[in-house]
Amino acid sequence: MGYRIDGLQYANWSEKIFIEMLDGRLDCVHATIAYHENFRETILNLEEWNRWFERYPDRIVHAHYAEDIRLAKKEGKTAIIFGFQTPAPIEDDISLLQIWHQLGIRIMQLTYNNQSLLATGCYEAEDSGITRMGREVITEMNRLGILIDMSHSAENSTLQAIEKSSRPITISHANPIFWCKAKRNKSDTVIKALANSGGMLGFSIYPHHLKNGSNCTLQEFCEMIAKTADLIGGTSSLGIGSDLCQDQPDSIVEWMRNGRWTKTIDFGEGSAEKAGFPMQPYWFRKNSDFFNIEQGLQKTGFSKREIDGILGDNWYKFYEEEFGH
Amino acid sequence: MGYRIDGLQYANWSEKIFIEMLDGRLDCVHATIAYHENFRETILNLEEWNRWFERYPDRIVHAHYAEDIRLAKKEGKTAIIFGFQTPAPIEDDISLLQIWHQLGIRIMQLTYNNQSLLATGCYEAEDSGITRMGREVITEMNRLGILIDMSHSAENSTLQAIEKSSRPITISHANPIFWCKAKRNKSDTVIKALANSGGMLGFSIYPHHLKNGSNCTLQEFCEMIAKTADLIGGTSSLGIGSDLCQDQPDSIVEWMRNGRWTKTIDFGEGSAEKAGFPMQPYWFRKNSDFFNIEQGLQKTGFSKREIDGILGDNWYKFYEEEFGH
Repeated sequence: MGYRIDGLQYANWSEKIFIEMLDGRLDCVHATIAYHENFRETILNLEEWNRWFERYPDRIVHAHYAEDIRLAKKEGKTAIIFGFQTPAPIEDDISLLQIWHQLGIRIMQLTYNNQSLLATGCYEAEDSGITRMGREVITEMNRLGILIDMSHSAENSTLQAIEKSSRPITISHANPIFWCKAKRNKSDTVIKALANSGGMLGFSIYPHHLKNGSNCTLQEFCEMIAKTADLIGGTSSLGIGSDLCQDQPDSIVEWMRNGRWTKTIDFGEGSAEKAGFPMQPYWFRKNSDFFNIEQGLQKTGFSKREIDGILGDNWYKFYEEEFGH
Repeated sequence: MGYRIDGLQYANWSEKIFIEMLDGRLDCVHATIAYHENFRETILNLEEWNRWFERYPDRIVHAHYAEDIRLAKKEGKTAIIFGFQTPAPIEDDISLLQIWHQLGIRIMQLTYNNQSLLATGCYEAEDSGITRMGREVITEMNRLGILIDMSHSAENSTLQAIEKSSRPITISHANPIFWCKAKRNKSDTVIKALANSGGMLGFSIYPHHLKNGSNCTLQEFCEMIAKTADLIGGTSSLGIGSDLCQDQPDSIVEWMRNGRWTKTIDFGEGSAEKAGFPMQPYWFRKNSDFFNIEQGLQKTGFSKREIDGILGDNWYKFYEEEFGH
């Protein structure tokens, strides 16, 4: 074991970033490959990834199963897991889930802030829960081994997804509301239900999810992890899902927030004055800063075993169980 | 060894046909999954195949590599290889080849009777050979391990494909012109070039490619195989690509011939009077009739080793070499 895994990133991928992943000893990164892209547009994103894998075979490899992460670690590469942040790539066609599974997609959010065909997002006024199609999609994702991610979903929808899914689910990138009151962060009820059902929570380092935003200290971040461990009675359900959007231009955060669903601009967690990407805290701006988190967790008093778990081994065991083979 | 493989079919797939495949001891069938369908439409066809594999897991299995055929034989199933009869599913996007390879497509025709973006079909008046995109596509198909099929292509284009391809190619379903003069059948020059380069010829049992059409006898068919073996000095490049279109309605042959490229009706190898599917010869109407061919080859004087080669072992060795792993 001793894996280092980041449970969610959406960087402006480049050779520089792939090198930094190896510098940070990252064995695996769950990479978002689509937000609001439809089926055909997401295929174009996958084509781009195929070209990266072809160009940098010594640095990155596409992971279909946990076994691929193990091999990547052994060979000094970073394994990339593909995920969608919205269900847009399956359009209204449930059979596209298997097509995407065949193409190596392993994680999908049922919603992204807004109501989707499947469930309610955390920015909606009313949370009507899992829809008729949503129930069918959960069953099919369970059958295939595509992980359900409710990071951007509303409370009731999230609790219903945990209940309805025959497999544990994930909240791959969010923090507890008790620490930072943000629409995207999660209640004690959700965090406990997630952990009790065997699910995984990835802590986000996106400033809008952090106490004191960009000024959040490493110590504050690590103390939050300790308090969450206290809440659920252990660290085995905890990991990092940094939400790192390294090197992305501000047009990307506008795309994430607005897609093609609104003609007026929605600023999401930002505001008209602060419309762009917020500045990352100084201790986590690139993949090689993973070492800072390790040191922070040590200073907070976690054991080596707990730190290894939080920094990757917990994700590894979870992926191993959920992705099957 | 002792494999039984049909190098091309486009049946109206059903449980009945899957049972007949097992009755005929077919270890593998190369199934056409698209003619004129674009990318998204071909995905719908693949979704339908996914449902068949889910519904009949004891009868059929999707083959990605020759190894899957070996396993299917061992487990008493028929392995299905996916192929396209036109390059329509890659549209004008060369990177879709890798997407299709990831989805298990292993064979693609560069043309289907007409000029395509890649090469010239056998019904065009002028045969301008492999196009600029065609050359790029051949290189990419070679890299990925997608087999080039020139069954419906024109002479010059076929010879250029054999020359340009770094791997042997196939003519999966056609017969020699010396035996039956049809636009779809192949000259001695093409058959020799194909065999000399290590390629494979699959003999068609589609009546328009047969001497005397639907009335062609089994003996005549097997004698043609013997003469072709004489022409190229052996049987190791020969197999069956029956072109069986079992249980298809006549609307399908109209779709094959006309796609969406013409507003007037093109009758292809048929005529206004005989527009539909021609009647199969009595000795090959379903998969279980593969035994008749075996008997016919025996009567024609082929050795057991030669018969095993023609009925499947030659395809198996070819697929093993071409599909890689």
